[in-house]
Amino acid sequence: MQDADKEALANQRKEPEYSSLLKRMLTGEKLALAKLVTAVENDAPSVPELMEAIYPKTGRCYSLGVTGPPGAGKSTLVDKLIARLRAQDKIVGVIAVDPSSPFSGGAVLGDRIRMQRHALDEGVFIRSLGTRGTGGGLSRATGEVLRLFDAFGMDAVIIETVGVGQTELDIVDIADTTLVVLVPESGDTVQTMKAGLMEIADVFIVNKADREGADKMASGLKGMVELNDCGASDWKVPVLLSQANQDQGVDEIYEELNNHRDHLATHTSKGERRAKIRRRQFMEILGHRFVKKVEVLAREDERFRTYLKEVEQEDANPYRITKAFFQDEEFARKIFDSV
Amino acid sequence: MQDADKEALANQRKEPEYSSLLKRMLTGEKLALAKLVTAVENDAPSVPELMEAIYPKTGRCYSLGVTGPPGAGKSTLVDKLIARLRAQDKIVGVIAVDPSSPFSGGAVLGDRIRMQRHALDEGVFIRSLGTRGTGGGLSRATGEVLRLFDAFGMDAVIIETVGVGQTELDIVDIADTTLVVLVPESGDTVQTMKAGLMEIADVFIVNKADREGADKMASGLKGMVELNDCGASDWKVPVLLSQANQDQGVDEIYEELNNHRDHLATHTSKGERRAKIRRRQFMEILGHRFVKKVEVLAREDERFRTYLKEVEQEDANPYRITKAFFQDEEFARKIFDSV
Repeated sequence: MQDADKEALANQRKEPEYSSLLKRMLTGEKLALAKLVTAVENDAPSVPELMEAIYPKTGRCYSLGVTGPPGAGKSTLVDKLIARLRAQDKIVGVIAVDPSSPFSGGAVLGDRIRMQRHALDEGVFIRSLGTRGTGGGLSRATGEVLRLFDAFGMDAVIIETVGVGQTELDIVDIADTTLVVLVPESGDTVQTMKAGLMEIADVFIVNKADREGADKMASGLKGMVELNDCGASDWKVPVLLSQANQDQGVDEIYEELNNHRDHLATHTSKGERRAKIRRRQFMEILGHRFVKKVEVLAREDERFRTYLKEVEQEDANPYRITKAFFQDEEFARKIFDSV
Repeated sequence: MQDADKEALANQRKEPEYSSLLKRMLTGEKLALAKLVTAVENDAPSVPELMEAIYPKTGRCYSLGVTGPPGAGKSTLVDKLIARLRAQDKIVGVIAVDPSSPFSGGAVLGDRIRMQRHALDEGVFIRSLGTRGTGGGLSRATGEVLRLFDAFGMDAVIIETVGVGQTELDIVDIADTTLVVLVPESGDTVQTMKAGLMEIADVFIVNKADREGADKMASGLKGMVELNDCGASDWKVPVLLSQANQDQGVDEIYEELNNHRDHLATHTSKGERRAKIRRRQFMEILGHRFVKKVEVLAREDERFRTYLKEVEQEDANPYRITKAFFQDEEFARKIFDSV
């Protein structure tokens, strides 16, 4: 038997398992949810079916993106926010995203230990996502895990990233509310990032506010917010000071999150914003599905492998080969199922 | 006339201009090169043709990737390396990549001013690339600008990024040699990034070596390098100390770059490595071309626009709609030219 056939057979065997996992997940079984998250993380073959099945059950939960440079105290702040959500009996999911590392572990896990006091709480589900297995599609994977959490019945999902690169900004941007956490020392980061940050921040936090320069940083941010206010949105981005490790300023942050949530609910822009996100997701899913289909060709299709061998030649011209691919009816047939 | 028709007509009109620019570029005209770089940056419709045409003229230049956290002194070091390359009459190109900012300007430009003393030198060509217009395909755009520089006749091209996120690592990884520049304070960054950094670094630099902790950082890196040495490569990654602003340690860095270049030339792995890169590029180009074709559908195709409207509905299921797309013979015909 060919390896490809074996794989196809193995997938068929797995298929019923996914639908049973899905049923168990929808009755609130956390272990089933964990297994489905792993499937999404590994971009398993049944993920499209899975996502199609759960999609109608999504759209209910509130999502919060938290980003900022390493060491800004994001995990500590998230920990305090979880406590407040739990005090109101909300079921909380946390997706800890680390685009920088191919492994979800090591330093990051150490960092996330601050949240671990919630790990034994039945109402909290924490999951790390690295680039491993996601083929760079970390934005896709994060969106899909968010939808799994949503379908599971989480009231709130917090998406936390470790950096402030463009990848991180794109990832947290799928959340309803985006919190940008900085520290007085982040001056340079703000400088480099300001265009991207201004676009995504719904709330700015200057954490570790006992340090020198906190007020200066806060007033600088306020200035930026005002400069950026072009009247396109009715939401005025607040700039708050906090010392999350002392639990200071966290109530004010929590209040502003609720304000922003209310704002979204009472402004028509919410529907428009979600429609825009859904449209972007659709284009992403289309592209991703195409790439997956080509990857299958690369493994299984003899003729496509001849193309790849050609590409590997020292004098190969990948642009010419790409053109040939898109003029090849047989590949069209293989990529588009019914042709 | 429809907007789409107007656009198509405008592109037709532009087409001969590109081939004339290409001719002028190949005779060494910098202004023509600059215009072609802009075309690549904007992902203009004629870019695939352009890249196909120049591809046979590429593969001669040496490329150097330089990455590291903001403030590590990368631009200063690059400036000193340019001076050494120029002393040997090499024609040098610099691609300054800023994935974090949608604009190439502001803080970054300020930073790059350190390189500007070379801006009046006929043998140096400096170009910034931001995410603007590249549709997130900054890795594609960087590779294409590198190939333009290569075809133009540059002897060496330096690709410099501002951060050390996964995007940055992917971008500099297309270079022949990758230099990772750190400072004694980068401890945390190293911690978070070590997996990704170890994979791409051919040479480690601890810059600003007069600061406290430089030796500790260097010996930590040396330890990491040894731990990571699994015998897969004959190249032993050197860890060097420098004070680029004092021009100290730069000769040693330059020597190691030449050593690595010689190493690549005398080891068969170079061909394999390039073949692997070319294969990755091919898969990227395929995916990118597909996305571009879908974007054209989104603008011009009535039926595809109906799909998009459906996706924007509150209860839409983008996964189901994606499935329908890939079962639609008419879209296959539109994506694959000859079907």
